[in-house]
Parts: sequence; structure tokens; C-alpha cells
Amino acid sequence: MKNIKEILNPFFYPKNVAIIGASTKPFKFGNWFLKALIGFGYKGDIYPINPHGIDIYGLKSFKKLNDIPEPVDLVYITVPASKTLDSFIECVEEGIKAVIILTAGFKETGDPNFIEVENELSRLAKESKTRIIGPNCFGVYCPEGGLTLLPGENFSKETGNVALLSQSGGVAVEFTRLAHTYGMNFSKVISYGNACDISAADLINYLADDPQTKIIAGYFEGMKNGGEFLKSIKNMRKPLILWKGGLTEAGSRASFSHTGYLASKPGIWDGIFKQFPNIIKADSLQEMFDTLIAMMKLPPPSGKNLAVVGGGGAIGVALSDMANRMNLNVPKLRPSVKSEVKKNLPFDGSVAANPVDLGNPVYRTTTAFKNILHILINDPTINIIVNDQISSHIEKSDFRSLKRILKKIRQELNFPIVVVLRQVSKKKDELDMEEKHRDARDSYLSY
Amino acid sequence: MKNIKEILNPFFYPKNVAIIGASTKPFKFGNWFLKALIGFGYKGDIYPINPHGIDIYGLKSFKKLNDIPEPVDLVYITVPASKTLDSFIECVEEGIKAVIILTAGFKETGDPNFIEVENELSRLAKESKTRIIGPNCFGVYCPEGGLTLLPGENFSKETGNVALLSQSGGVAVEFTRLAHTYGMNFSKVISYGNACDISAADLINYLADDPQTKIIAGYFEGMKNGGEFLKSIKNMRKPLILWKGGLTEAGSRASFSHTGYLASKPGIWDGIFKQFPNIIKADSLQEMFDTLIAMMKLPPPSGKNLAVVGGGGAIGVALSDMANRMNLNVPKLRPSVKSEVKKNLPFDGSVAANPVDLGNPVYRTTTAFKNILHILINDPTINIIVNDQISSHIEKSDFRSLKRILKKIRQELNFPIVVVLRQVSKKKDELDMEEKHRDARDSYLSY
Repeated sequence: MKNIKEILNPFFYPKNVAIIGASTKPFKFGNWFLKALIGFGYKGDIYPINPHGIDIYGLKSFKKLNDIPEPVDLVYITVPASKTLDSFIECVEEGIKAVIILTAGFKETGDPNFIEVENELSRLAKESKTRIIGPNCFGVYCPEGGLTLLPGENFSKETGNVALLSQSGGVAVEFTRLAHTYGMNFSKVISYGNACDISAADLINYLADDPQTKIIAGYFEGMKNGGEFLKSIKNMRKPLILWKGGLTEAGSRASFSHTGYLASKPGIWDGIFKQFPNIIKADSLQEMFDTLIAMMKLPPPSGKNLAVVGGGGAIGVALSDMANRMNLNVPKLRPSVKSEVKKNLPFDGSVAANPVDLGNPVYRTTTAFKNILHILINDPTINIIVNDQISSHIEKSDFRSLKRILKKIRQELNFPIVVVLRQVSKKKDELDMEEKHRDARDSYLSY
Repeated sequence: MKNIKEILNPFFYPKNVAIIGASTKPFKFGNWFLKALIGFGYKGDIYPINPHGIDIYGLKSFKKLNDIPEPVDLVYITVPASKTLDSFIECVEEGIKAVIILTAGFKETGDPNFIEVENELSRLAKESKTRIIGPNCFGVYCPEGGLTLLPGENFSKETGNVALLSQSGGVAVEFTRLAHTYGMNFSKVISYGNACDISAADLINYLADDPQTKIIAGYFEGMKNGGEFLKSIKNMRKPLILWKGGLTEAGSRASFSHTGYLASKPGIWDGIFKQFPNIIKADSLQEMFDTLIAMMKLPPPSGKNLAVVGGGGAIGVALSDMANRMNLNVPKLRPSVKSEVKKNLPFDGSVAANPVDLGNPVYRTTTAFKNILHILINDPTINIIVNDQISSHIEKSDFRSLKRILKKIRQELNFPIVVVLRQVSKKKDELDMEEKHRDARDSYLSY
């Protein structure tokens, strides 16, 4: 049997791609994905396949796989559910190694006929050399392989250290866009849907040895073979930030309609999160992203003790409440540290305690801010510093000071400091999309 | 004894204001607040008071309150903590009715000397006609009274139905700015700090009868007299959205440093939230704001059953998980409703269940979307509809359709529909402030 690298490489680094169900109609999936692949600048040959053999975007189309004059590495299937099995059989007969099936409407419908089709796809894949990602997925984006089958023609061309493994196509696309906005790049993004053949465990095994991938973010709903999954994460030496969808009763039911799996019981996952310290739990897309940013960018803290340095009392209260709710500590300052901090707080209304209230605006006295950070970093009972203030009060020159101070600390001490820069006032004309949102909302609200 | 309306009206509708501690130095509080008051366009006379009698912003200054040629309604004190008592005694001697003390550094320091000063302020206020909001607060913003003593010269001049009652000045300013960004206006905003005289209970009693105020948002940390507070909310017939700071051990300690109160034990507040159905719990500024928007804008739902209508499977899973965690239900659709919904779902990959997965982009078929909303609204087992999709996929024409459909439903049926319009991709050059944030971050992260 081939190893997982040989099996999966053709999905990420195909020298050419055929799209069965390629369409000229702009709102069809079979058009949308083809357009993204071309727009992204995929360098290999692209072979659209449709029954009429109509050329699309200047590409010569074919009626059948067999008509293509060279061996094909990767086939993407976007035909209706009722025609998917025939298309896949064609792939098997042609000896294709890698097939992504976008088409939905199988196990997740609960309809016995379509469940049987999915089972048949699964059987055929196991018995042949033709392996499947999907069905009910978007597929892969791999900048190193020069392709995206996820709809993202403007996705970054640069390779990064993050892999994203998502059962949902929507989450895969949304997360990738969000990450790009923050300048983050990916090694591989995989939307794998119902996983009738290649499983989350297979993909984790592959990513565990992928030299480009340093950290994995995952959105999972359910899986067939829990034992195989546990084995894959047991062997993996990379951190996995995992958003598990369907941990509630309602969520689990929704998950069944989505990917055909009843998400397993919450208790089981509590156990998994406890057993594997390299699996970090997230409860939303945003949390998965924030955790990823923190893990990518900050040195690991040496403990759970937070010092909060803030620009106003309520911010300190809110951060302390939040820290305690997440099982982090905000310890009292030791008397010697407290008196050191106090020496650096010149203003009325500032407080030498944990949280430290610097007064507001906080960056006014660069030296005080810097000194206080150093005092806290030198205190061995403090493991992380969180600095939060109302950023609308920050002047440009304050930003320059902040940059200088933080850069120096990073270079010399490499201590985990989280700086919260909040945007509290937006100009109304700043955000086009937000305008559109408000417009739509207001038509509902202010009739 | 005067009633609470007579006592508090001079704070919100003063015909003139004196500022003790007014300063020409741009970073002093005594300059910042004066500038905001002038910039906001306050129409009454403003009398800066400072020991040198230096004119500020073209306003004639005075050395003492007594030098002002007419009776003063409201005095704002921003002198250092050590001089606050003297300034307040001057107010008492002049028979001033309303005094706001910005100055911090009293009870919250834990220093017996300054605790005693605060107690003395409190005693003097009780024994005289001179009442205090503060110390350690920003004061009030009242568009109807034409003034802001909160630093917000660009705050809205329009009166709205929301009152904000905040122990923290920072929360008061940040929340007001956030609300303005969304076009929401206020009746009164009050930052009341340590509450050495006028208490949260007094302010609630006043707002309970304030004709402009329909709904109250509150950020509280701690209070002296819990019984008085409970009595005030018992008598109030308006909803109060309450963010209680300091519900954890660390938060409570931070709260002591902030406003001089140890926030009471979580159990007590659980009981209060349970006992008073018009008090709605929020756990952050954003949650307080979102709850406020929902309560202001949506008709009250008749029960806890949600129908989720979405543009992708994982969104449905995430919303269902979230709903269950908040004790809302996402019931199965009844068979008759399910088959009605199914008739309106033309696409492969759409799912007639709860959540309804419309396929993506969802607004493509306006009629289907409209019909499905109507089917769900007519189902008496559904009380709220939540509609969520990836908004970057929405075209301008889709927004027009969405607006038309929602507006008509609102006018004819007035059913609570929450439409989530998410902004998933921002252009990098869109947000000035965000650029600055990233710049500062990157200097720390990519050295």
C-alpha cells in the first residue's frame, strides 16, 4: 500500500486538473471554481469536461475524461448528486489517482438511496487506486502547488506555516480570507466534507510530516473512525487548534444535516482535549483564529500568571474577570514589585496593583510604561503581560513609542506581551460593506 | 427633602457650569473636559476657575467661585485629590446644588487618609444642599441639556431613548462612541465613579421617571447600600441591561482598586438576575451593546424557539451550538413545515431542516428566501428567525432584495428576525486605525 504522502501529493501538487461538470453559467459551482483556479494563476493544464464539449474561458473542453490527450493528475467533480457515481467510475477506469468531489446531497440527506451512493463511492475508492477528498467539500488550496480549488482567486501566492483542515467549505474559505487580512499565509488548506474515503486522520498523518506545516487549525464535526483519529493525533508532534462543531444537542443535529455525522458526545471531547496537551480547544472561528495568532507570534508563557497593564479601571476589571473565567490568575503584586511600580506612576488616578492602572492616555509617559513592563518581566511570578487601552486616545507619536519599546523587549527578552489595541470609533464612511449592512438593517428597523 | 428629580436636574440641564481646576495645558483633565464642553457647543456660560485666573479658550477665568457674578448651577471639580475637599467646601459655602468630582485617588487607593477625605465629602453632601456625582468619574452627557462633561465634543446632539449608567468613565465614553457609530442616541449618559453621595439607586430612581429614557444600560462594579439598589430596581418599570464587573475573584480585587468597592459575591448577583426579569445580564461591553440593539430594534419574541436559516452548513452548526449554550432551542421542523420548506429549496446541497441550509449564495433566489421566511413565521412553534450568511458573497442587488423582503415582513408581520451580515474580507487599505495597529504589532512580532 502506498504511504499517505504518495496518496495525497497529487491533490496538492497536480501537474494538471480536469473539472467534470465545468460550466459556462456564472452562478454554477462548476463555473465558480474553474474561474478561481484560472484567476489564481494555476500553471498546469486545465481540462473542462462537460457533455456538450463547449469551450470555457478560452479552454478547450472535452466530453469525456478519456478524450484528454494526456494522463490527468487531479479530477474535480461538480456534477449533480445523481450523476456523481458515473463520473467517479470514469475516474477509476482512467486510473486517476486523486479525485475531489464537490457535489453534496449524499449521506447528509438521510436518504437511503444517496447514503448507498456514498457507500459505493467509498467502496470503489478502497478497492481502486483512485482516492477521494469529499464529497460535499470545496477541496484544497495549496500555494506551493500553485492552485486553489477553494473559491479564492485572490488568495495569497505565498506559502506559510499554517495548515487548515476543515470539514466545512465555508469555514475553510472564511478562515483563509480572515487570515490573509492579517497577513498570514498557509501551507495547505483542505475542505474535506463527508470524508467518504480520505479521512481527517489521513490528512493529519500527512500534515504531521509535511515540512511546510508547523501548526494546524481544524474545524471538525464528526467522523467515522474515532480510533484512527486518536491514533493520528497521538503520533503528531505539532499543535492542533481545534474548533469542534456540534458539541451541543442542537449543534450535533445540525452537523448531521451538514456532513452526515452526528457529532459525538461533549464528554468524549472533553476527555480528548484533556488527554492531548497539543490539542487546543476553540469555540468559534474567531477564537480559532486568535489562538492561532497567539501561538504563531508569541513566545510560550512559562505559567498561568497574568499581569494586566491598562489604561482605565474598568478595562482592568473586565480583563481580570475574563482571565479568571479562563483559569488564568491575576496575582497580587508582591510588596517589593508594587513599590517599584508605584515609583513609575506619576499621575493621580493611577494604581500600582495588578491590574496596573496607568492613567489615560497611557503612552504619554513612554519611560514609565517601559519601566513598568521591565519591572513586571523581571518578576518571576509573572508569566504573561496583557496591556489594554482605548486606542482612539493614542496619538501617532504614541504608536511610534509603543513600537520602539515592544521591539526592544522582544529582541532582548522575548517575553509574551499581548497588546490590545481597540478600535472604538470608526468613521461612518470608512467601511463600504458596513454601510451596506446598515442600510439593509435600517430598512428593516426604521420603517 | 427634595425629590430625586429636583436634585438631579441641575446636573443634566444646568444653565451654566464652573470648572474648578480648568487648565491651559492640553494634556490635563481640566483642559480636556473644558475643551469637550466648548466643542460640543454648550450654550450656557462656562466659568473656568484656577488660582492664577488665566483666561482659557477665550473664556474669562476666575480665582474663586465667589468671584463669579451670577449663581452657578453645576460645578465640575478637577483639582488634585489633596485639594478636592477645599474646593468642595467652597461649593457648599456658595450654596451650589450640583457638583461633579472628576478627581480620583480616594477610597480606591486603600489609603486611610484619602478614605477619610471621601467620607468627609460624603458627610458634607448629606448635611448640605450640595450634592455630588463622583468622585473618580467623568460626569454626565445629556444632549437635551446641551452638554457633555464626558470627553466627547463630537458626541451626537440628538436625544435618544437609551440611558447609560456607568461606574466607569472609560466604559461610558467607549460605549457612547460605539453606539453613535451605529446611529444610536442617548437620553443621558452618567459616569458616577465612587458614588460617595448620589448612588446608582438614586440615578435609577431618576431614570425610572425620566420621560426620555425607555431603556437603561448599566456597568456596575460595587455599591455601599445593596438594599437601596434592590428597592430602586424593584420599583423600576424599564429594562436594565446590566454588565456587572468584578464577578470573579480577580475581577473583584481589580474593582476595589478602581472604584473602592469589593464587588459582591457572584451568587448574590445570580439571584438578582433571576429575581428581576427586567434586568438582563451582559458579560462584556460588546454584549451589553448587542443586547441593547436587539431590545431597541426587535419586537419581543414569544418564546425561546429559534429557526436558523443559513448559507452554509457550518454556520448552522455554530449557531445551533451557540443557541443551545444560551438556553435557546433549535427545534426540529414539524413534517408539514419541513415539506413546505423543501418545496422552496431548488438547489443541490440545500437542506430542509432546522437549520435550513439555503445553499450559497443564499439571496440568489429571492422568492425562495421570502417564501421560507413566511413558512417559518407562520409556524407557531418558531419564535425567532436567525439568518446568517457569508456576506462577502452578497451582491448589491442581493442587498436590495433582502431590504425589500425584510421591510415588508416588518411592516406586515413584525416578527423578530435577526440577520447576521458578516464582513469576512476587509481591504488592507480600508482601515487607517487598523493599519496603525498592525504596524505596531508587526514591529513586535517580526523583528
